[in-house]
Amino acid sequence: MKQIKKLLVANRGEIALRVLRSAREMGIQTVAIYSEADRQALHVRYADEAVCVGGPQSSESYLRGDKILEVCRQLGVDAIHPGYGFLSENAAFARKVKEAGLIFVGPSPEAMELMGSKLAAKAAVADFDIPMVPGTEEAITDVEAAKVVARQVGFPILIKASAGGGGKGMRIVNAESEFEEQMQLAVSEATSAFGDGAVFIEKYIGSPRHIEIQVLGDEHGNIVHLFERECSIQRRHQKVIEEAPSSVLTPELREQMGRAAVDVARACNYTGAGTVEFLLDENHNFYFLEMNTRLQVEHPVTEQITGLDLVKEQIRVAQGEPLPFQQDDLTITGHALELRVYAEDPANNFLPDIGTLSTYVRPQGPGVRVDDGFEQGMDIPIYYDPMIAKLVTFGKDRAEAIARMLRAIDEYQITGIETTLSFGRFVLQHPAFVGGNFDTNFIRDHFTPANLAIGTDDEAEINKLAAVLGATLLAEKKTPIVAATPESSATGSAWKRNRLGTR
Amino acid sequence: MKQIKKLLVANRGEIALRVLRSAREMGIQTVAIYSEADRQALHVRYADEAVCVGGPQSSESYLRGDKILEVCRQLGVDAIHPGYGFLSENAAFARKVKEAGLIFVGPSPEAMELMGSKLAAKAAVADFDIPMVPGTEEAITDVEAAKVVARQVGFPILIKASAGGGGKGMRIVNAESEFEEQMQLAVSEATSAFGDGAVFIEKYIGSPRHIEIQVLGDEHGNIVHLFERECSIQRRHQKVIEEAPSSVLTPELREQMGRAAVDVARACNYTGAGTVEFLLDENHNFYFLEMNTRLQVEHPVTEQITGLDLVKEQIRVAQGEPLPFQQDDLTITGHALELRVYAEDPANNFLPDIGTLSTYVRPQGPGVRVDDGFEQGMDIPIYYDPMIAKLVTFGKDRAEAIARMLRAIDEYQITGIETTLSFGRFVLQHPAFVGGNFDTNFIRDHFTPANLAIGTDDEAEINKLAAVLGATLLAEKKTPIVAATPESSATGSAWKRNRLGTR
Repeated sequence: MKQIKKLLVANRGEIALRVLRSAREMGIQTVAIYSEADRQALHVRYADEAVCVGGPQSSESYLRGDKILEVCRQLGVDAIHPGYGFLSENAAFARKVKEAGLIFVGPSPEAMELMGSKLAAKAAVADFDIPMVPGTEEAITDVEAAKVVARQVGFPILIKASAGGGGKGMRIVNAESEFEEQMQLAVSEATSAFGDGAVFIEKYIGSPRHIEIQVLGDEHGNIVHLFERECSIQRRHQKVIEEAPSSVLTPELREQMGRAAVDVARACNYTGAGTVEFLLDENHNFYFLEMNTRLQVEHPVTEQITGLDLVKEQIRVAQGEPLPFQQDDLTITGHALELRVYAEDPANNFLPDIGTLSTYVRPQGPGVRVDDGFEQGMDIPIYYDPMIAKLVTFGKDRAEAIARMLRAIDEYQITGIETTLSFGRFVLQHPAFVGGNFDTNFIRDHFTPANLAIGTDDEAEINKLAAVLGATLLAEKKTPIVAATPESSATGSAWKRNRLGTR
Repeated sequence: MKQIKKLLVANRGEIALRVLRSAREMGIQTVAIYSEADRQALHVRYADEAVCVGGPQSSESYLRGDKILEVCRQLGVDAIHPGYGFLSENAAFARKVKEAGLIFVGPSPEAMELMGSKLAAKAAVADFDIPMVPGTEEAITDVEAAKVVARQVGFPILIKASAGGGGKGMRIVNAESEFEEQMQLAVSEATSAFGDGAVFIEKYIGSPRHIEIQVLGDEHGNIVHLFERECSIQRRHQKVIEEAPSSVLTPELREQMGRAAVDVARACNYTGAGTVEFLLDENHNFYFLEMNTRLQVEHPVTEQITGLDLVKEQIRVAQGEPLPFQQDDLTITGHALELRVYAEDPANNFLPDIGTLSTYVRPQGPGVRVDDGFEQGMDIPIYYDPMIAKLVTFGKDRAEAIARMLRAIDEYQITGIETTLSFGRFVLQHPAFVGGNFDTNFIRDHFTPANLAIGTDDEAEINKLAAVLGATLLAEKKTPIVAATPESSATGSAWKRNRLGTR
């Protein structure tokens, strides 16, 4: 058993601070790295030591594996936590960390490589009974051969880049007549984006829900799953709202998917925390999508329903400790939601809105957790992902978690930057979301910027409030003990006076 | 079934905000009241409507029941939540609220009256098998009669004012020779403090632990308990640190005490949330102390281990709803701690330290909850209880809750006012507390201001840090990528740069 004494967090923002907090609770000394754009960042101030590793571009700093290893040597670091993004799924870096005699808090480089390629991953799990979307078993570049497969699978089909991600090199083909042109476009897009034109063909699932299973494995062959997260509310194929448990899984389906996820992890001798992603179709058939070999952004919802600290579990496993529980010890308690608060304008196609957090006051109270890396007065740097915070709420059931999320959104005070808070309020109040009847097309099916126009920025609402306020002030003169603040719409800020005071 | 549409919160500070948050989540309109000293308070800004009810002294504002009822009439309020303190245990006020046709979110006036008198309470529960501290069954003023009882019980004994509380009119008598003088002093102290010289005599429990049981009853005769809280860490007979569950209760003892608490509640037909307090002696015998007929300050630790929102449960019961669970449905998950952050100087006998919160930044992250009513720049008014915040942490077990509390204390940034944060750190690191070997004499037995002198205000510590920083800055010149911040003591602030930057 190795004991980690000093941990370097090779990341920034909320996830760096998140990892530092768990390390501090475990009595582990911490080292932060930062770019020139992050000199004032909270993770830099929080760590025991902090080192600037280069310029603001990620390629000059957070992606410089060699420089990070040099810092480790100089400061006597014995382990690296990569967070998510940046070097977290870079098998070559993980290998160098090991070669330098350090602990990489994550899976083996081999597992990362295997799961990093969609087709290799499919091949690896072939021995297990994992449901797959019907399609090609191998990468394909020949149009005629591909057409034969597509015909067998049946249209609509999906053409996907083998090396892809984030929707790049992905094409939906509804009929055979369109196939040839779309296939050629997908291959050339994949070639230019990833330097690899290989694609594969899959049955297109039209109304899928994104359900993923959190797994955790140790170096002694134990693997458990920590139930599911549903991440179907997405914009541009990226998650905005996640929850655990899903509103549609039955205990039987949960057990089946959990077992499948554990099998996927077993297929690559997985150690540490990982996530197995599935699509769930309208008939509640599930299909293996891919495995993410790192801590996910949305891991807090799993922490809230299981009572576990996933970062601590990662660190313990990396130290060689066996998992302290078995599958039967784990249960779901309550319900948790996460809203990613992005510096984006939902009224303007979610375009990033970079600037200064002129006001930044977090919501508080029971059932609310905020994971972030900013404070009032800070700039959101243009160089990185525009996420400001993860707003997490939890309650005894889904209805309470939703009510708390709406309350927390109303309490959150952010000015200077447009955020996805208003979008979150829209989704959380939408009957399709509340009723659990949604899929990854939620935004396409239900959202237009016009129906976002409720809350603090609505002129009519403000005028109505001003009128009520006028009447109230008038009334106050007659009867000295009357209300000083008016009633306000349930969709606005929780801070009545602030709201009117700032206008 | 009545449906509460508009709720007035007859309180201030953190508990007012706490109640307003739950009401908001339930879709109930809210009204705050405030004194002239609280014009800028958060609860005033949070409520849908807010009314100033008078001057800064409680007697001019928060205790003015008639004025509060007038506000209710004017604004169409249909229910009042009294919080704790102020009018919360005033049976006459509760009766007037009912007579005005409003809902009082709390027990019946009769239950409040019965439990408001220590001797009446003892008589009320006599039919049940509730363990009592041996002593007088009735109030006593005659010295000779009292001496007979004292002899039967055996010294040391305790003389307590029947109408008392907070340690007033309380005397420990170690031997018969001191009895007469102490008895006379107690009677005269009780007469001047409460206008009632009646006292009773009890066996003195030398090393008691304070264990209380949360109960919840509805109007349909259902009463359950929500397990225990231990509140043995006290200064001046007032709680500073609470936890749930207790580190010493066995499942059998928990069940016995829970059943006794439910019996006490049944003896007064209790409805709503209440707390039955017990003393636990060195041999783990428990004795009924008193019942508090309101929400307790320390209710959040129970919320964290049960997953319930006690304010919502209070409101539902007040609406006439039956409890949505039975005793067997309730379980303990994890462990929770609460530290009351008072504006008091623990190095100076916990004297109140009133002033402005020059810096006020709350801790964040997993397992941390802060209930407060202040923000940076606000004054702590001199007129009320000097509590700034309740810092609550929770984890999968006691060790994790303690580690998180220490982490949260280190993250909390408060300047301008001395607080009990440093005292909290002292207790949470003390072997007696960590080992669960403590009682209500913890401060007397283990604490002197001298052993508090660790952390941010220690000159030697600062000098050491400055020296390390100097060395580090020197090193930085030689090797450009070296640490920008030094290692720091585990007992200091979590924010390394801030700490040095502000000196």
